[in-house]
Amino acid sequence: MKYAILFGGNSYEHEISIVSAVVLKKVISKNLEFIFCDEERKFYHIRSQKMNSKTFSSKAYQKEKELFLKQNGFFYKKFFKEKKLDFDCVINLIHGRDGEDGKVAALLDFYSIKFIGPRLEASVLSFNKEFTKLYAQSVGVKTLNYTMLRKAQNTHENIPLPCIIKPARLGSSIGISIVKDKKDLEYAKDVGFELDNDLLVEEFKSDIKEYNLAGCMIKDDFIFSLIEEPKKKEFLDFEQKYLSFSTHTKITQANLTQELQEKLKNSFARIYNPLFKGALIRCDFFILDNEVYLNEINPNPGSLANYLFEDFNATLDALANQISLEEKIKIDYNFLHSINGQKGKL
Amino acid sequence: MKYAILFGGNSYEHEISIVSAVVLKKVISKNLEFIFCDEERKFYHIRSQKMNSKTFSSKAYQKEKELFLKQNGFFYKKFFKEKKLDFDCVINLIHGRDGEDGKVAALLDFYSIKFIGPRLEASVLSFNKEFTKLYAQSVGVKTLNYTMLRKAQNTHENIPLPCIIKPARLGSSIGISIVKDKKDLEYAKDVGFELDNDLLVEEFKSDIKEYNLAGCMIKDDFIFSLIEEPKKKEFLDFEQKYLSFSTHTKITQANLTQELQEKLKNSFARIYNPLFKGALIRCDFFILDNEVYLNEINPNPGSLANYLFEDFNATLDALANQISLEEKIKIDYNFLHSINGQKGKL
Repeated sequence: MKYAILFGGNSYEHEISIVSAVVLKKVISKNLEFIFCDEERKFYHIRSQKMNSKTFSSKAYQKEKELFLKQNGFFYKKFFKEKKLDFDCVINLIHGRDGEDGKVAALLDFYSIKFIGPRLEASVLSFNKEFTKLYAQSVGVKTLNYTMLRKAQNTHENIPLPCIIKPARLGSSIGISIVKDKKDLEYAKDVGFELDNDLLVEEFKSDIKEYNLAGCMIKDDFIFSLIEEPKKKEFLDFEQKYLSFSTHTKITQANLTQELQEKLKNSFARIYNPLFKGALIRCDFFILDNEVYLNEINPNPGSLANYLFEDFNATLDALANQISLEEKIKIDYNFLHSINGQKGKL
Repeated sequence: MKYAILFGGNSYEHEISIVSAVVLKKVISKNLEFIFCDEERKFYHIRSQKMNSKTFSSKAYQKEKELFLKQNGFFYKKFFKEKKLDFDCVINLIHGRDGEDGKVAALLDFYSIKFIGPRLEASVLSFNKEFTKLYAQSVGVKTLNYTMLRKAQNTHENIPLPCIIKPARLGSSIGISIVKDKKDLEYAKDVGFELDNDLLVEEFKSDIKEYNLAGCMIKDDFIFSLIEEPKKKEFLDFEQKYLSFSTHTKITQANLTQELQEKLKNSFARIYNPLFKGALIRCDFFILDNEVYLNEINPNPGSLANYLFEDFNATLDALANQISLEEKIKIDYNFLHSINGQKGKL
C-alpha cells in the first residue's frame, strides 16, 4: 500500500497541517508521496527530501511540480504528456477548512481516488459543532447543553457564566474564549464572530475531565487506540495542542474504571458507525458524574493520532485495504430514448 | 450576467438533469454556456445548437470540447494553450448525486467559481432526508414522525401500515414505495436497499395535502414563488414528476387561507436562512390539521422551478448579483517561522 499524504489547504490550520505531515512522514515506514495544497489551492508534488517547514515558509514549494486533479488521480506535465502520480491511497491530512469541511472528500470522490478520511456527510457533520450536537443526539450520545449565537441576528441571550464560546466551524482551539466575567463577554463574541457567523456557547465546567479516544472500523470490528487524558491548563491553545502531537513519546492509558472505558468505546462506536467508515478519527469526550459526553469529533486528527495506537502502521494498512471507491451509477439513456419516441420531443 | 448551466452528473437523475437544462435554456433570455458532466464525470462544453436530448443519448457530446476545472474556472485546450470558458456564474442544475449531495458545491468553492445552488452544508443537510429531519427540528419546523431502517442492521422494527418507504439520499421519487399490506413490506425494503443503505419510513397519510413553495433571499428579503398544489396520484413517479416541469404553462396560486400561506412562508424562511443562501430552492410541505410540515427540500429543483415565479429572469439576476466567493484565508507562516526559531526544528 503506497500512500500519498495530502496536506496544507486554505485553512486557519494550514501550518498545523504541514507540521502534521512532517511528523507522519517519520511514522509511516514506507515510501510515501506528498501532495501539498497551497493557500491558492494549487497542488504540488513535494519530494520527500523537501519535506521540512522551510520549503513552505520560504515558498520554495512553488519550484516543485504542479499537480492537477483529473479522473482517477493527480497528474503532472512531463514534456508534452501528462503522467499520473503513482500511489494507491490518499491520506487526507488537511486540518480545518478544505480538509475537514467536506471539500477534500468531495474532490476525491468526484475524481475517483481512494482515500483515508471522512466522507462528505461525515465531514459536514463533524466540522460544524452545531451539527455534531444534532447528530450525536440522533445516535444516542450525550453532549453538553448549548445555545447558538448568530452574527446576523445580534441577539442578547441571557448567557450563564462562566461559559465557553466556540466558533461553530474551527478546530484547534482557534477563536475559543472562556468568559468568567460579564464585562469580557462582548470581546469574546467579537473574537468569535471575526472567524465564524455562528458561535456555540456552553456552560464552562472547570472540573470536567477530558478523554481522547481514536479508532477506526475494519470490516465489522473496531480498532481502538489507548484512551488519553490530555494534559491541559484550562484548555490547550493552538500552539500547545499541536506541538503536542509532534513531541509525543509514550502515552499511558488513562486511569479509568473498566466500566467507563467501555462507555467511552460504546459512545465512539455509535458516533463512528457507519458515518465515519473509511476514516481514522479521534473523539474527544467529557466525563461528568460517570456519564460520557461527546465534546468534539476530529475526523483528521493531528498526524492521525498515531501516538495513541499500539501498531499504527498495521492499523493504517488494514483500514486502507478495505477502502473502496464510491460506486458509479450506469446511465442507460432509456428515459431520453422514451421521450424522443413521444410527441414532446426535446 | 452570463450564466453557465452545469448539468448531468453521475446520478440516477442524470437524464432528468439534461431535460431540466434543455427546458431552462428556453426560459433564460440571454446567451448561455452549457457544461455537461458525463457519467464518467468528465466535463464538456456543449454548444447551444447541440442542446437536445439526442446529443447525449447518442453520445455525440464526446465530440464537443472537453473542459477541465482549475483555479477560477473551467478551461479547454486550444492549440497548445489553455483558454478559460467565459461566464460570470454557474447555475448548478445537476439533480441528485454529485449536484445535490455537496460535490458540486465543494468543487466550485474549491476552484473559486461563483455559482447559484446550495453550498456544502446545505447540500448535505437537504440531500439526506434523515439529516433534513434533524435540521428542520433544530430550526423549529415540524416534520412527520419517522423511523430509520439500516441495511447493515437488518432490524425488524414494528412498522405501522400503511407506510411510505424512501431511500434517504435519492430525489425524484426514485425507489419510493407505499406499503399497505404486510406481505409487500419485504419487497419494498429490498427495492429501497438496492439504492441506499438507509431507508426512512413514515406513516402514509392518503388524505394529506401537499404544497410546493420556491424562493430565494436577496439581501435581507425573500422572493417567494407562487404556492403550487402539485397534481398527484398517490405520489408522482419519476417520469410524471419530471415531464411536469417541461410542459408547464400556467400555474395558479393554491387555494389556501392567508394564514396558511403565511405559515408556509414562515417555515420556508426558517429552513432557508442562512443555510441556503446563494440557492434558489423549492420546499415541499404537507398541511395536516392546519399545521405545516416540511416534506423535503429541493435545493436544485427541476429547471429551477422557473414556472412558479412571476419574473424568473429578474429573480435569477438579483440572486446572482449578490453571490460572492468563499473568502480566502491568508497564510502568513508565522507559526512555522516561530517553530524554526526554536529547538524542535522540523
